Amino acid sequence: MKRVLLAAAAATLVFGLHAEGLHVEERVDLSMTSRIRQEAFNHSQVMALLGHLTEQIGPRLTNSPAMSQANDWTRSKFNEWGLANVRDEAMTDAFGRGWEFRSASVELLSPRAYPLRALPKAWTPGTNGPVEGEAIAAKIESKADFEKFKGKLRGKIVFLSEARPYKPGEKPDWHRETDETLGEMKALAVPVDQTAEAREEARERRRKRYEFTPQLNQFLIDEGAIASVSASGWDNGIVLLSGGGSRKAGESVGVPSLAMSAEHYNAVMRTLARKEPVRLRVNVDARFTSETDQPAYNTLAEIPGTGPHKNEVVMIGAHMDSWHAGTGAADNGAGVAVMMEAMRILKAAGAKPDRTIRVALWTGEEQGLLGSADYVSRHFGKFAETTDPEELKLPEFLRTKRGALQPGRDYEKLAAYFNLDNGGGKIRGIYAQENMAAAPIFETWLKPFNDVGATIVTQRNTGSTDHISFDRIGLPGFQFVQDDLDYFTNVHHSDLDVYDHIVAEDLKQASAVVASFAYNAAMRSEKLPRKAVIAD
Amino acid sequence: MKRVLLAAAAATLVFGLHAEGLHVEERVDLSMTSRIRQEAFNHSQVMALLGHLTEQIGPRLTNSPAMSQANDWTRSKFNEWGLANVRDEAMTDAFGRGWEFRSASVELLSPRAYPLRALPKAWTPGTNGPVEGEAIAAKIESKADFEKFKGKLRGKIVFLSEARPYKPGEKPDWHRETDETLGEMKALAVPVDQTAEAREEARERRRKRYEFTPQLNQFLIDEGAIASVSASGWDNGIVLLSGGGSRKAGESVGVPSLAMSAEHYNAVMRTLARKEPVRLRVNVDARFTSETDQPAYNTLAEIPGTGPHKNEVVMIGAHMDSWHAGTGAADNGAGVAVMMEAMRILKAAGAKPDRTIRVALWTGEEQGLLGSADYVSRHFGKFAETTDPEELKLPEFLRTKRGALQPGRDYEKLAAYFNLDNGGGKIRGIYAQENMAAAPIFETWLKPFNDVGATIVTQRNTGSTDHISFDRIGLPGFQFVQDDLDYFTNVHHSDLDVYDHIVAEDLKQASAVVASFAYNAAMRSEKLPRKAVIAD
Repeated sequence: MKRVLLAAAAATLVFGLHAEGLHVEERVDLSMTSRIRQEAFNHSQVMALLGHLTEQIGPRLTNSPAMSQANDWTRSKFNEWGLANVRDEAMTDAFGRGWEFRSASVELLSPRAYPLRALPKAWTPGTNGPVEGEAIAAKIESKADFEKFKGKLRGKIVFLSEARPYKPGEKPDWHRETDETLGEMKALAVPVDQTAEAREEARERRRKRYEFTPQLNQFLIDEGAIASVSASGWDNGIVLLSGGGSRKAGESVGVPSLAMSAEHYNAVMRTLARKEPVRLRVNVDARFTSETDQPAYNTLAEIPGTGPHKNEVVMIGAHMDSWHAGTGAADNGAGVAVMMEAMRILKAAGAKPDRTIRVALWTGEEQGLLGSADYVSRHFGKFAETTDPEELKLPEFLRTKRGALQPGRDYEKLAAYFNLDNGGGKIRGIYAQENMAAAPIFETWLKPFNDVGATIVTQRNTGSTDHISFDRIGLPGFQFVQDDLDYFTNVHHSDLDVYDHIVAEDLKQASAVVASFAYNAAMRSEKLPRKAVIAD
Repeated sequence: MKRVLLAAAAATLVFGLHAEGLHVEERVDLSMTSRIRQEAFNHSQVMALLGHLTEQIGPRLTNSPAMSQANDWTRSKFNEWGLANVRDEAMTDAFGRGWEFRSASVELLSPRAYPLRALPKAWTPGTNGPVEGEAIAAKIESKADFEKFKGKLRGKIVFLSEARPYKPGEKPDWHRETDETLGEMKALAVPVDQTAEAREEARERRRKRYEFTPQLNQFLIDEGAIASVSASGWDNGIVLLSGGGSRKAGESVGVPSLAMSAEHYNAVMRTLARKEPVRLRVNVDARFTSETDQPAYNTLAEIPGTGPHKNEVVMIGAHMDSWHAGTGAADNGAGVAVMMEAMRILKAAGAKPDRTIRVALWTGEEQGLLGSADYVSRHFGKFAETTDPEELKLPEFLRTKRGALQPGRDYEKLAAYFNLDNGGGKIRGIYAQENMAAAPIFETWLKPFNDVGATIVTQRNTGSTDHISFDRIGLPGFQFVQDDLDYFTNVHHSDLDVYDHIVAEDLKQASAVVASFAYNAAMRSEKLPRKAVIAD
């Protein structure tokens, strides 16, 4: 295989990749690339956008008042920049209730007085002022455990998880890819078959948890517990948390529930193990902001296409919702700021794209890619529901069977979707999701950003964020490879997910790459190639 | 130079070090060493001691009620184990007032509501219930700055330090020495001369800070500020703090003062920089526990010598006082638990030492080695006060001149002092403090612990803890080399200085090494060699 730079004249990069039976030629407008880089690197607004989103608005739990503010504010910025079709699109099904918290404290009263570090889980009630009680260790993992603790929890603060040994941080918290690790990332492991038994076991575990959670919520209420506490999944005082209770109107929200720093949690558990009473005061100011389930909203805006393919669309996106321990700066304020900035840059650079470029700021990603999945199903297509009566008894997320792909009205109109959601680190390349035909195109598009560290195309499938909503119905949806920084060591879903852990230069770089990819996809003679949808 | 193991018969290790003109022979009772290791490794109580000290009693600020409890509890343990002369010894001069805090919260009220992470500085007042006010950035570093902020601080919460950029953790938090780093530690850098000017400048800075602190305290009161906040010196939400206000009766204690996690501090400063108002609610439950200055107490206990040198003493010690953000587990609960455990082990192993072995649990180390310095000056000796009238005008810690060494009654009776105060990591060797004659002795004593990682003798002078109180008047006082673990990255003086960051196996090892060193020093034919006191 041989690569040749065919020509870089007239500010156009034509990059050819030749191999037996394989020839790709891909053009990049280097003049526009240069304008994009200039704007991104020298007139950046990305950190100001991130600052407003995270520190004026704050964390953006799906359907919280702050998420509504973020919808409003991002629309107003898009309008200010002259984008078209600025709008919120409601999800088809009501998402659930809104929730927010204002403050939370847990005070150790005995054996000594000290403030403990804990934050409330989403969609759990507040305490309605300070409440005091004794801690009790109660590992309740199934209905069978209810008998053990019946009559013992009244007025108690229930410590639900076991003490968790401290794990020393033997690797650096902060991690950037090197040429070596990027090289390794290009290798793809051929997938291992999962046995039918293992799959069934995993589904059974999920089903049991799904059934057990509301039972436990109700048990704690019926037994008169005043709060429950779980240990944070991370050490060093970091509080890692997500949701508890229930966001659905009519379901039991349980008692006030908190995640506590592992060091403080373990101290309580050790004191209980020494048969010493532990007395606590808990004060959580949290509230549901609606009585009924409400729709959740994606925010969208466009630079309309002006060429022969103006009815086709290139999308870029990131999720605007976040968890609430920090301010959702890395997950995914960074992605939102970069996507907004990419649109601003394209306007500032005077881009008149052939295809329409549309930005989407998703809701409900943290609850299962809900905003993007709903959007994709309404605009681009979805799988029909299974007709298996056994499967239909299960909630959708537990089903293993699906019907046929039903392309939607715009299925053929989507040229590409690009997503950014692995924290605040700069872009090092892109996951091609086993779309072999897309790889040489991306290699060409990355060339003008090789000098700022974006170099690799890997065929790896990366998951767990909104490009999957596109990818799973065969649309060309992609996520960028990013430097981790401290995303997977300290920041992800924790109270350290805040502005200071974001690097301005990294977001400037990412903004330029995203703007350029969107522009290239909008100017290309063809839509990006698609891969086949694999049947079950 | 050649080392020879002369004999290991009759459970005695005789280790000889030969070189031209140098011959040392040192005996170690391997049978007793074995009993010490058995007890330390298989019947350890060190973690139970640490657990009680840190989680039942809690942090032990000098002269706080918890420090008194620690004095009481350690005496009761020493009595329970049958040690002799169990006592507290009051320092000559009253230390200051007692202080403690029970809880502290800072809530962000606007631009959004969120609990911020902050803890009160020692010897600063509480808020007497919740108080609310706007934050103001006010870098006040000298009297000249007072004019700038006069009339602007009433009802305000004063943010005194600048925003501090986040420093990525590019090295692992957790660090153990390797053969290579231990090898490097054996090398000594010949000291660089400090110029007279540099010395004078440093003294001048300290003098200015000493004069300025009470002026700032009073200024904040006079101007009607309701609290002051400084940024924690560490990142990742860790709150690093020490004292503020004043511990001395009659001096201004200023307004309630807190250290805030850098991420939260910076967020407030950024919002202020955007000219957005920041409203906070502060609630600190802190109090002085005495109106007048009180003495502070060291706790001591002994295994009396029974041999010809019973009037001589080997001392081991660690400081029991701590800062109050965590529980003082590494600094220096670990040292206290190890010293207590070493005494318990010696009793359990049936040690009948020639010399008396005395354990000292010091007070006031964090305020300048005060407890050990006072003890040493009363028992062993001190430098006479300078007669220079200019120097006498200065507080003692700013003086550069001193009088002659005045040996005390027991100056000749101290055989050795061993200190442990570099966190919870195991012992890797010992600092010989340029006492060349002590090195081959220590090398022999370490041999039975080479297999558990204690190997090196370095001539380096290590400072900043209680062995210096002995070393500076020419007594053989030593500190052990320890694995850092996360002592200097996360734990030292921070809210992460808690039980979970201590490794049980490391403290067991340290207990055995300390017990063995104490025993060897108590059984040796001679006291440990001394080095000359360097005249000014």
